[in-house]
Amino acid sequence: MSVSTVASDQSVCSPLSVLGRDVTVPLVTGGEVTYAALDYAASAPALQRVWDDVAAYAPYYGSVHRGAGYLSQLSTDLFENARRTVAEFLGCREDDQVVFTRSTTDSLNLLAAALPADCQVFVFETEHHASLLPWREARVTYLDAPRTPQQAVEILERALADRAPSPDARLRSREGEAPGPALVCVTGASNVTGELWPVRELAAAAHAHGARIALDAAQLAPHHPVSARDLGVDWVAFSGHKLYAPFGAGVLAGRADWLREAEPYLAGGGASRKVTRRADGGVDVEWHESAARHEAGSPNVIGAYAIASACKALTEVGFDTLVARERHLIRKVGEGLRDVPEVKVLSLFGDDAPRVGVISFVVEGWNSSHFAAALSAEYGIGVRDGLFCAHPLVRTLLGSDPQVQGECGAPEAVPGEKSLNAIRVSFGAGTPEEHVERFVRAVKELVRDGAKWSYRTEGGRCVPTD
Amino acid sequence: MSVSTVASDQSVCSPLSVLGRDVTVPLVTGGEVTYAALDYAASAPALQRVWDDVAAYAPYYGSVHRGAGYLSQLSTDLFENARRTVAEFLGCREDDQVVFTRSTTDSLNLLAAALPADCQVFVFETEHHASLLPWREARVTYLDAPRTPQQAVEILERALADRAPSPDARLRSREGEAPGPALVCVTGASNVTGELWPVRELAAAAHAHGARIALDAAQLAPHHPVSARDLGVDWVAFSGHKLYAPFGAGVLAGRADWLREAEPYLAGGGASRKVTRRADGGVDVEWHESAARHEAGSPNVIGAYAIASACKALTEVGFDTLVARERHLIRKVGEGLRDVPEVKVLSLFGDDAPRVGVISFVVEGWNSSHFAAALSAEYGIGVRDGLFCAHPLVRTLLGSDPQVQGECGAPEAVPGEKSLNAIRVSFGAGTPEEHVERFVRAVKELVRDGAKWSYRTEGGRCVPTD
Repeated sequence: MSVSTVASDQSVCSPLSVLGRDVTVPLVTGGEVTYAALDYAASAPALQRVWDDVAAYAPYYGSVHRGAGYLSQLSTDLFENARRTVAEFLGCREDDQVVFTRSTTDSLNLLAAALPADCQVFVFETEHHASLLPWREARVTYLDAPRTPQQAVEILERALADRAPSPDARLRSREGEAPGPALVCVTGASNVTGELWPVRELAAAAHAHGARIALDAAQLAPHHPVSARDLGVDWVAFSGHKLYAPFGAGVLAGRADWLREAEPYLAGGGASRKVTRRADGGVDVEWHESAARHEAGSPNVIGAYAIASACKALTEVGFDTLVARERHLIRKVGEGLRDVPEVKVLSLFGDDAPRVGVISFVVEGWNSSHFAAALSAEYGIGVRDGLFCAHPLVRTLLGSDPQVQGECGAPEAVPGEKSLNAIRVSFGAGTPEEHVERFVRAVKELVRDGAKWSYRTEGGRCVPTD
Repeated sequence: MSVSTVASDQSVCSPLSVLGRDVTVPLVTGGEVTYAALDYAASAPALQRVWDDVAAYAPYYGSVHRGAGYLSQLSTDLFENARRTVAEFLGCREDDQVVFTRSTTDSLNLLAAALPADCQVFVFETEHHASLLPWREARVTYLDAPRTPQQAVEILERALADRAPSPDARLRSREGEAPGPALVCVTGASNVTGELWPVRELAAAAHAHGARIALDAAQLAPHHPVSARDLGVDWVAFSGHKLYAPFGAGVLAGRADWLREAEPYLAGGGASRKVTRRADGGVDVEWHESAARHEAGSPNVIGAYAIASACKALTEVGFDTLVARERHLIRKVGEGLRDVPEVKVLSLFGDDAPRVGVISFVVEGWNSSHFAAALSAEYGIGVRDGLFCAHPLVRTLLGSDPQVQGECGAPEAVPGEKSLNAIRVSFGAGTPEEHVERFVRAVKELVRDGAKWSYRTEGGRCVPTD
């Protein structure tokens, strides 16, 4: 395993150069090969530009918001400029807030903690656990998986129209009709099928029924332009590590009112404006009302700066270019997989539905973990196998009894048995064409010839036998 | 402002080489000077070793816990090894858990969310807001500032002995005597005075009274060895950005039972083991019981790896060496400040109390924000002015009415008025001797000659006039 110092020509083929493009990994069958990172939907490699920006800034790193020194002032400006860059990238409205979190999961947990009293939440069962599970103290309505984008809108409209009045009489209108506050949370692109969801239409439906809507853009933002204003969504959440900026930061951006009125997400310095001891021995706290309210502790300035750098890089190349190139790769993978009758691509909305570069599938006669292990060990291709932290959706797509489904991760490999989980291939702006070509070739060879090696499960992983 | 490519000889003088040692900044009086980063207590520069490790790993970055590819396996191993390195660095017991968070603030908020029902919390008013404020749903007893370490132990013992029985009768023992669970949270070294707290003795007192104890080691861990086992503390929290690893990660390490029994800190993927829809349309979740329970979302693998790298670097140089060198610098600053009668160093436990490299002071006749601004603009020295996110402590030390105190940050500069806030100088393993020498010289010159420039407050900052 080595990093070649010779510049790769792969960057010519991909719109944006990423770290790790020259990393080679050993094959179980002998020799080494350039690693094909095809797990962008979990974590994308850092853009070279992001890395270069972070490396150039790192010697100037200083405390944010708190120091009198030159580097503290510089770091504070850099951090606040990153906030503005993200606001622009997401098409935020003038009075929206941009809060730096640690990930999409963190962003949606923050939003969940900021729900007004007695808020009702609506989520499709098809969501990633990050948007399915955070609404712990709210009344949650789980919506069945739709089979067309139009059906998604209809299901949501019906649920919103039917929603129960608030149990708290004070929150009902005088006519006794208006229910309490409601939030819809929906993905922009599925982390399993890659399919695009009808965000604009869902937002219109939500607002027509007096609900608000949050967009889980973790899978959408790296691939398509996202504008809160144009889509009409109230909040947008995404993660740096899926947007080529894997330095531990994420974003929640959107309406300030719920955020301003909520208890601070974390209690501590930075979020507190004034803390005084009372005469009775207790403590009074005045909290900030800006984004700082939910950013207690020293901000992750490198993480925020990395995200801003990625936003700029994507914007500069342009989403027209990125989308066109990605469509080409998606077509290539789609056509390649269609050539193999044993491969079944998972889809809610049908094979021709528009999607980002995220494709999940099962292979008849293969345990998915075995298949993924063989792609890695024999071809140097990194994909993911499992239920992709979207258990209900994957089970719906596999069409089998939830009680016998495999768990997240690699279950015992039992060749020939019905698929308990799936394989996901995903790619993006840093993917050279050769990676998807190798992937298609590998799938065809594995299905035709079988694996060249044997594999076993060890500590939850499917690994080559010694 | 430029980064010299010529290797600095300053690393010869400091035990560990850090990034930014050659960064120069402009002086308001003309010319440039090497930046003296003396705000380590807020954020320390990255160790060169940490940066090199992160840079070497970055091309191999991959999804953690979830991918079948080579780089995912490598990244997962790296992340889990980081956990073991931290456990060793903190002298954890075999069954302790190490949870990666985003900072000390986040760690203590996690612990606060994991308190058992009806837990009573005891904190001194002298704590940083990160350990003063997170206990929002608990009954909190704020303890008055002690004036000796021994008094701290006595105050705590008295409070624990007096603690009220649980209002929940079910949690009381049959004799009606044993109160419910209790937690003490205490700093190892003050972020204002740098003074060491009697952690071992406080831990013994807590345990003698059936309470548990958490150590805020944000300021202690970068300077002194911290062993949960030896100190007898139940949890330890610290931040990467104060431990020369500013990549957005922190740590909570300690007893597994409360963490395992608590609701997951964040709800989402990674924390959830199995998610199924029920026949009634609801959703059932099985959560992990390991550290993953509180680490939902893709872990910040670079942040965790950076922390592990810093732990190794500090351990390899050895805390004996680090402590001896730091004592030398502390003595140098202390003696320098004692030469200036106008300077009053803030202290709870007296001038000779053992401390880490964190010293706060006020200067008679000077507004602290003015003084800090002059140190930056005229000497290229970065310190911090304000209340240091420990408002009650700083007010106690300044001895004035809390109602007229300045807020965190830079209040209006009114020369000659009584100090509303203080100046803090802090340093560590990357500090060359020249920085503290320059600082002492600057203090003497400013007090003797006055500032060479004039300053005004703009947007909460004290800045040089044009």
